[in-house]
Amino acid sequence: MDYQNVIDRIHGQLQDLWGQGRVADYIPALAKVDPRQFGIAVATLDGQEFRTGDAQVCFSIQSISKVFTLAMVTGRIGDDIWKAVGREPSGNPFNSLVQLEYEHGLPRNPFINAGALVVTDRLISLYPHPKDAMLEFVRALCANDDIYYDKEIARSERLNADRNLALAYFMKSFGNIENDVETLLDVYCHQCAISMSCADLARAFLFLSNRGVNPFDGRQVLTVSQAKRLGALMLTCGFYDESGDFAFRAGLPGKSGVGGGIAAYIPGNLAITVWSPELNRHGNSLIGMAALEHFTTDIGNSIF
Amino acid sequence: MDYQNVIDRIHGQLQDLWGQGRVADYIPALAKVDPRQFGIAVATLDGQEFRTGDAQVCFSIQSISKVFTLAMVTGRIGDDIWKAVGREPSGNPFNSLVQLEYEHGLPRNPFINAGALVVTDRLISLYPHPKDAMLEFVRALCANDDIYYDKEIARSERLNADRNLALAYFMKSFGNIENDVETLLDVYCHQCAISMSCADLARAFLFLSNRGVNPFDGRQVLTVSQAKRLGALMLTCGFYDESGDFAFRAGLPGKSGVGGGIAAYIPGNLAITVWSPELNRHGNSLIGMAALEHFTTDIGNSIF
Amino acid sequence: MDYQNVIDRIHGQLQDLWGQGRVADYIPALAKVDPRQFGIAVATLDGQEFRTGDAQVCFSIQSISKVFTLAMVTGRIGDDIWKAVGREPSGNPFNSLVQLEYEHGLPRNPFINAGALVVTDRLISLYPHPKDAMLEFVRALCANDDIYYDKEIARSERLNADRNLALAYFMKSFGNIENDVETLLDVYCHQCAISMSCADLARAFLFLSNRGVNPFDGRQVLTVSQAKRLGALMLTCGFYDESGDFAFRAGLPGKSGVGGGIAAYIPGNLAITVWSPELNRHGNSLIGMAALEHFTTDIGNSIF
Amino acid sequence: MDYQNVIDRIHGQLQDLWGQGRVADYIPALAKVDPRQFGIAVATLDGQEFRTGDAQVCFSIQSISKVFTLAMVTGRIGDDIWKAVGREPSGNPFNSLVQLEYEHGLPRNPFINAGALVVTDRLISLYPHPKDAMLEFVRALCANDDIYYDKEIARSERLNADRNLALAYFMKSFGNIENDVETLLDVYCHQCAISMSCADLARAFLFLSNRGVNPFDGRQVLTVSQAKRLGALMLTCGFYDESGDFAFRAGLPGKSGVGGGIAAYIPGNLAITVWSPELNRHGNSLIGMAALEHFTTDIGNSIF
Repeated sequence: MDYQNVIDRIHGQLQDLWGQGRVADYIPALAKVDPRQFGIAVATLDGQEFRTGDAQVCFSIQSISKVFTLAMVTGRIGDDIWKAVGREPSGNPFNSLVQLEYEHGLPRNPFINAGALVVTDRLISLYPHPKDAMLEFVRALCANDDIYYDKEIARSERLNADRNLALAYFMKSFGNIENDVETLLDVYCHQCAISMSCADLARAFLFLSNRGVNPFDGRQVLTVSQAKRLGALMLTCGFYDESGDFAFRAGLPGKSGVGGGIAAYIPGNLAITVWSPELNRHGNSLIGMAALEHFTTDIGNSIF
Repeated sequence: MDYQNVIDRIHGQLQDLWGQGRVADYIPALAKVDPRQFGIAVATLDGQEFRTGDAQVCFSIQSISKVFTLAMVTGRIGDDIWKAVGREPSGNPFNSLVQLEYEHGLPRNPFINAGALVVTDRLISLYPHPKDAMLEFVRALCANDDIYYDKEIARSERLNADRNLALAYFMKSFGNIENDVETLLDVYCHQCAISMSCADLARAFLFLSNRGVNPFDGRQVLTVSQAKRLGALMLTCGFYDESGDFAFRAGLPGKSGVGGGIAAYIPGNLAITVWSPELNRHGNSLIGMAALEHFTTDIGNSIF
Repeated sequence: MDYQNVIDRIHGQLQDLWGQGRVADYIPALAKVDPRQFGIAVATLDGQEFRTGDAQVCFSIQSISKVFTLAMVTGRIGDDIWKAVGREPSGNPFNSLVQLEYEHGLPRNPFINAGALVVTDRLISLYPHPKDAMLEFVRALCANDDIYYDKEIARSERLNADRNLALAYFMKSFGNIENDVETLLDVYCHQCAISMSCADLARAFLFLSNRGVNPFDGRQVLTVSQAKRLGALMLTCGFYDESGDFAFRAGLPGKSGVGGGIAAYIPGNLAITVWSPELNRHGNSLIGMAALEHFTTDIGNSIF
Repeated sequence: MDYQNVIDRIHGQLQDLWGQGRVADYIPALAKVDPRQFGIAVATLDGQEFRTGDAQVCFSIQSISKVFTLAMVTGRIGDDIWKAVGREPSGNPFNSLVQLEYEHGLPRNPFINAGALVVTDRLISLYPHPKDAMLEFVRALCANDDIYYDKEIARSERLNADRNLALAYFMKSFGNIENDVETLLDVYCHQCAISMSCADLARAFLFLSNRGVNPFDGRQVLTVSQAKRLGALMLTCGFYDESGDFAFRAGLPGKSGVGGGIAAYIPGNLAITVWSPELNRHGNSLIGMAALEHFTTDIGNSIF
């Protein structure tokens, strides 16, 4: 399959969507990102890589990091994490406290903010140096030791974390947070501020399409079963309140972030990352969503 | 793959789960079904069929019929149906009116009762004899002209339809029901009362794994794209409030009914139906859910 | 107290609010009412009556009728009605099904539509000719045998009752409606269509300020305790989602209707009715609410 | 009226309700209170005081303090407080975040925890030494300079404030909290820990039945209108999700606290305080609610 040709064509076609979305503006450090950026990267299991546009520009991966922390925690404690967080789509906007209240502090899934906070909380319990451990984990996945936190983003996140503080204290009131909330927020804001390029992220998602094995160092990051299940979670919950629609239109497991990045993969085949900062009203990259729908249509392949 | 061996083994192993669930009792006609029944049928795209246990016993397909009516309506009016019903998991129990109210009479997806009522309402608008048309559609899909309505079930449903009447009148108050509510309920109660065996249902789902083409008569029931999208909907919404969990555990698109049946499929490969009347607390067949999880584990194949 | 002077002054001052509200338009028969009408009537326990503006024009009393049906049912079965309906403010718009679902078909109070439907349902169980009985009851309260149903309004209500049909069927699914839903809706639509003037209504509310005794015929309609409790219900729940605000601003027990009428009273003293068809966004008469706030301020008397 | 006789009789009759409720146990300092305590105090506008049982024992006034802080803030900024907090009953348990989310951080009323936090936040903005100011305010109201904070309770509250921290951060995320959340919680936990006896509290509520004038020093604490409106708020919102029921049964404006205290009053007449630590399932003193219902029945006087 001539992926280079496919992504080049998509990159050319979709640029006229610029201006239809809005860059995330809940923190100053994100609001000032240049909206007119658009990169695509594909990494295949047979070792090829394809890039177009701004595929090597680093951006804030934001919620895409939730896949990495969940993989770290699942790899350590396995199914025990599901005692603290559910596996059902939320059917509500991603910051909702409603469901959390009705379900006594148990978040619906690990990809809404509440669920991600619980996962990071357990990660803190498991790792003495959680911020170092996260970097090390991601660096190994994409075989790039230069991955680092964007300190300005992390600081800006921390100064605008009232909603997440509310979520964390609320869950703590139900006994579902183990660590100090201030520490939790510090780690969480760093995790959101991991800075990677499309090329890095595509490589970092390859282990998911490779039955849990990191293709760069051969290590089994997750069991086959855990990797499959992480894929199912991404398909049903990976795009906030637009998850069903994305499954309907693109049919791929993936995860988006408000930095404008989306990472997805086809099991046994490839990983693909798109980045464009303007978001649609659901908080997903407007051009990124369109690009992935075009991609699966053009290559005639999805998981369905 | 020796599917006969696989389903026989599963059939043997799971019988000791009898007694852990409860037969649906919201209508008398369903409550009196013998709970100790369990059948499995597999139909493959290369024309083989495998059966074990009560695979030829007819049962009430209930909500599995929602897949057929949606296919009929989508085949006629395409994406227009999505103006009247959403495509997102509901995140709420299947009869919930809450979401319906907040979203002004637009059901979250076509597989919750509210959404299925809207689909059947449009089917009535499209077909002068909707009850005949449904039978004809299903008969062609499974190549069996003996499929019929269980009249006693249909009557019993109609006498216990207060909740569905409420849903229908509620949506009508928002302008999202076109036909007379009494007529709608009559058709809807018949659709739920279609009587089929596991063997019938497995054949009837083959068109979904066959890119929309009925393998028995070669007709294109849905376009390739429509078939894929119906699969995505089943994966994200097919099992009420347990959809995410089923995707997580089994990783197959499918649809369950409170009659105890579950029909699922692997794209490009096969369709499988399990039936056992005892339900878990989410309203899905307790043994059926377990059987499908075992099946994908045993054959080492899911969509992820 | 020179009530005539007070209500004349209020009538003069508030006419410039015309045009700021909207006449109820959910049924054609109400939508065509001339908005520029405004009447006030006061009836005192010592037998005086005061009127200004359109105080003798008949209008549709709509939800004010809920006070009469509740009084009829309470007078017959006493506290048993509280097994079927609650006594708490709803905290939600008046048609909400949300609360009803969370509380298993038990409406929050008898003045939201769901609660009023339950009360009317019990009235049907108690009276062989409920529509005649309601007229007889209201006629005795206001000593006017000419009170009758506005048949056109009743018919128009019945043709636009989808939301109330949904509420009734929904509660019936929980076992909280005893009679046939079609019959219930017929009686309920008639009750809403009772046609009375401000002067009639002020007299009809006097029994509430008179410890339950009809001052015109001396009959004890409610016990002293029942009358007080009906007053508490009106104060906390009588104005939909604006009840708290009305208690805050005017401090009187009362009940409004979407026909633009409001009836209220001061215990041991008087009853007052205001009518002006334009509604505010909460569904209460815009001028009526203002008039009652002015009235309690001007006479320096409320229950607080 | 021989109030001494009335409260003595009530005190005698209701002691057999001991054991039917539960002492608040969300903080250790409250959980260890001896449940078998029961005091009643009445203070009349003509200067009499009546006491029975444990009427002079000091207890933690908890949410009753919300009346004092609201009076302080209203006295300073008047109606401006209503831009930040609503005046409608909540229709939901007192800690609910649901309503808060749907209404964009604006609490329904000043007596749910969220609303009280907003009021205390504004008090901090208005007073340079808010903790001193609160004591001074309450001391003047009850003419007792020995009122003080129970430091152990305040500390225990602060250590168990996760839910209130969540509420505060959540509202801050909507821009409805002006001050540092940690400071806010410190002041709020002190306010809840004010320690007073029934006799103190009855005197401190007299200004409400006295048209806003402190009868001990003659100062106008609130305007006549403000005092009436505070009464309306207490009647509709003073008893969490049991407010409607209390209005229905007792018919008095009042406020309860989880310490087991209830303070109420009859306008133009008297104030009454009951204290008994065991709570009913709504969080109100079980014996206290019964005592007040008996009281209004026995003296034949309520506001209705």
